[in-house]
Amino acid sequence: MAEKRYLMTPGPTPAPPEVLAAVGQPVIHHRGPDFRQLYAESLGRLREVFRTVQEVLLFGGSGSGAMESAVANLCSPGDPVLVVSAGYFGERWAAIARAYATEVDHLRYAWGEIPSAGDVAARLREREAAAVFFTHSETSTGVVIDPQPFAAAAREAGGLSVIDAVSSLGAVPLDTDAWGLDVVVSGAQKALMTPPGLAMLTASPAAWERSASAGSPRYYWDWERTRKGQATLDAPVTPPVTLVAGLNVALGMLLDEGLEAAFERHRRLGRACREGLKAMGLELSSPDDDSSAVVTAARAPEGIDSDELVLLLRDRHGVTLAPGQGELKGKIFRIGHIGYYDVFDITTALAAVELALVELGAEVERGVAVSRALEAFEHTTV
Amino acid sequence: MAEKRYLMTPGPTPAPPEVLAAVGQPVIHHRGPDFRQLYAESLGRLREVFRTVQEVLLFGGSGSGAMESAVANLCSPGDPVLVVSAGYFGERWAAIARAYATEVDHLRYAWGEIPSAGDVAARLREREAAAVFFTHSETSTGVVIDPQPFAAAAREAGGLSVIDAVSSLGAVPLDTDAWGLDVVVSGAQKALMTPPGLAMLTASPAAWERSASAGSPRYYWDWERTRKGQATLDAPVTPPVTLVAGLNVALGMLLDEGLEAAFERHRRLGRACREGLKAMGLELSSPDDDSSAVVTAARAPEGIDSDELVLLLRDRHGVTLAPGQGELKGKIFRIGHIGYYDVFDITTALAAVELALVELGAEVERGVAVSRALEAFEHTTV
Repeated sequence: MAEKRYLMTPGPTPAPPEVLAAVGQPVIHHRGPDFRQLYAESLGRLREVFRTVQEVLLFGGSGSGAMESAVANLCSPGDPVLVVSAGYFGERWAAIARAYATEVDHLRYAWGEIPSAGDVAARLREREAAAVFFTHSETSTGVVIDPQPFAAAAREAGGLSVIDAVSSLGAVPLDTDAWGLDVVVSGAQKALMTPPGLAMLTASPAAWERSASAGSPRYYWDWERTRKGQATLDAPVTPPVTLVAGLNVALGMLLDEGLEAAFERHRRLGRACREGLKAMGLELSSPDDDSSAVVTAARAPEGIDSDELVLLLRDRHGVTLAPGQGELKGKIFRIGHIGYYDVFDITTALAAVELALVELGAEVERGVAVSRALEAFEHTTV
Repeated sequence: MAEKRYLMTPGPTPAPPEVLAAVGQPVIHHRGPDFRQLYAESLGRLREVFRTVQEVLLFGGSGSGAMESAVANLCSPGDPVLVVSAGYFGERWAAIARAYATEVDHLRYAWGEIPSAGDVAARLREREAAAVFFTHSETSTGVVIDPQPFAAAAREAGGLSVIDAVSSLGAVPLDTDAWGLDVVVSGAQKALMTPPGLAMLTASPAAWERSASAGSPRYYWDWERTRKGQATLDAPVTPPVTLVAGLNVALGMLLDEGLEAAFERHRRLGRACREGLKAMGLELSSPDDDSSAVVTAARAPEGIDSDELVLLLRDRHGVTLAPGQGELKGKIFRIGHIGYYDVFDITTALAAVELALVELGAEVERGVAVSRALEAFEHTTV
């Protein structure tokens, strides 16, 4: 029998069969009524998921492209900006902001630390910033912050808040308008359960106003061109029509489940994953609380290289987890539980980790992780 | 019975069932061995299709994104550039070049005119240009030029040649290295028979050298980052993995057919389409010769609005042709014959046009288009 594959990384994530069926349908023309209907429906559903009355701009590309779009449409060369980073994706904000020749003040935490809105406010009192770039869910470490005090700090200092919600949107609470987030950037390949290739962004009236005078060159990622096209359902460039068909199905599934129910499911999956790992005797490197509902990171046991663990799981057992990135390479492994996941995905991941660690000669507590995870998942229904 | 749909536009084009099956497969991780193999194979196949020894850079996005990538990686603000345009996509080069604050000299022909390399050379004697942007196959008009004298004119004047080959690559001859083309830009959704969402580009050593000093900001479309990632099969951002799987299958099909055989097929499809339309009594607006192998454009008969014809075909008969764009709106309709097309697609398109024109009250020669098309297609095999 062919080896089964289990994709358990924090992105891309598995797409439901209904979504795969949609992306495998024949190509349709992007200016015809079939696509226009899909386009309108998915743009409407995106607004529900972002919880905004603003237009959600939909681009072909990756989440990093939407991040660049935010920088290109908000900043002019020389603009002072503040980047808050505590991991791989925070660093990406800094790299993009520098590529656009902004003056980057980099509030840089060690990977895995939890950024503080108080630090941001203090930093903004020292030096103003046209925009503050930060990360909702830092996929490289498993840290999820509450964006609200960060956005408030930016607003009080007269700056725009720009948030990377690529791995968080649809998994943990995010309320664009109610929380006063100026720009929220995301991608389809995480909790939106769609094969990669779509990115999206929404902007507040203040951000739109800024974009009108921002002096960075842009064409593909230009907000105004995209908004104009969307207003008449006439995409400014050929969109990935089949991926949009998949996204539309996925968004329908997410909204049918209900956003609050999806958030609760992710919280419970996080709890199950943490309790199972701890029962095995492993130390978590992501926070051990309900904020950590997107990806769970754990340290490899003493003497075990986490890269080796990840490779063994992938190559011998068909289970793909994520390794540590950057500073955490070789030290941690990460289990994504974003999107199309249920508790049996968690128990599979835990069983596989237990098996592989034993194979690597690590001393772990055997036979308890799965039942502890089920218990943690169940108890949280009460 | 549900109405069958026929996609006969010059892009996106129908994807073969094998390609659709590939894009509908489960999502795989972009840093695992399954994807790396696909990535390496498709990058290698792209080099064969581009006929280059250089790296072909593969991006998630549309062809326009790859066009922007060329401008962003070659130009600094204020650089003098020459844009040659004779239709919708030539105008796009001008729009992107202006968005990047280059000094655009715009050699602008009426839509449907055939640009002359002599004009380009003369223009470059008047004013030098860091780069010359032109269009191999102008999808809006059906005009396909021979890029060689244009590239030679640019080279003689010390400028880089940058060619939009989005709708031409894989359909008509293009020999990147032998023809000395500095930058060739394309997309997967035309003759490469893949659902939209992938763009690609190749650059000559001279273009790479220029890119090292070009001062325009870029991140997502940056060549060097992309090349570095591709060198280790470690994509710089999450690529549209399922679309790459589809592209790989499509490229395999194209190379199995053979590029020369594919070019000959497109030439014959063009002939069949032209002869059928003329037999019906219609006037071509694309050139009536073998250069015109990508899309055939014809004028609507006197008194008929071509938009009305296209809408009737689409909404009553399920056949999607392309309308006239810009200056040609309402005047012409276009039949794409790019990629996954054979002669029966042409006869279907002709039969549908005949039917719809009769329904609109036009006087057309009936019952001859299909047989004339078959005859033209057959005769060309001799």
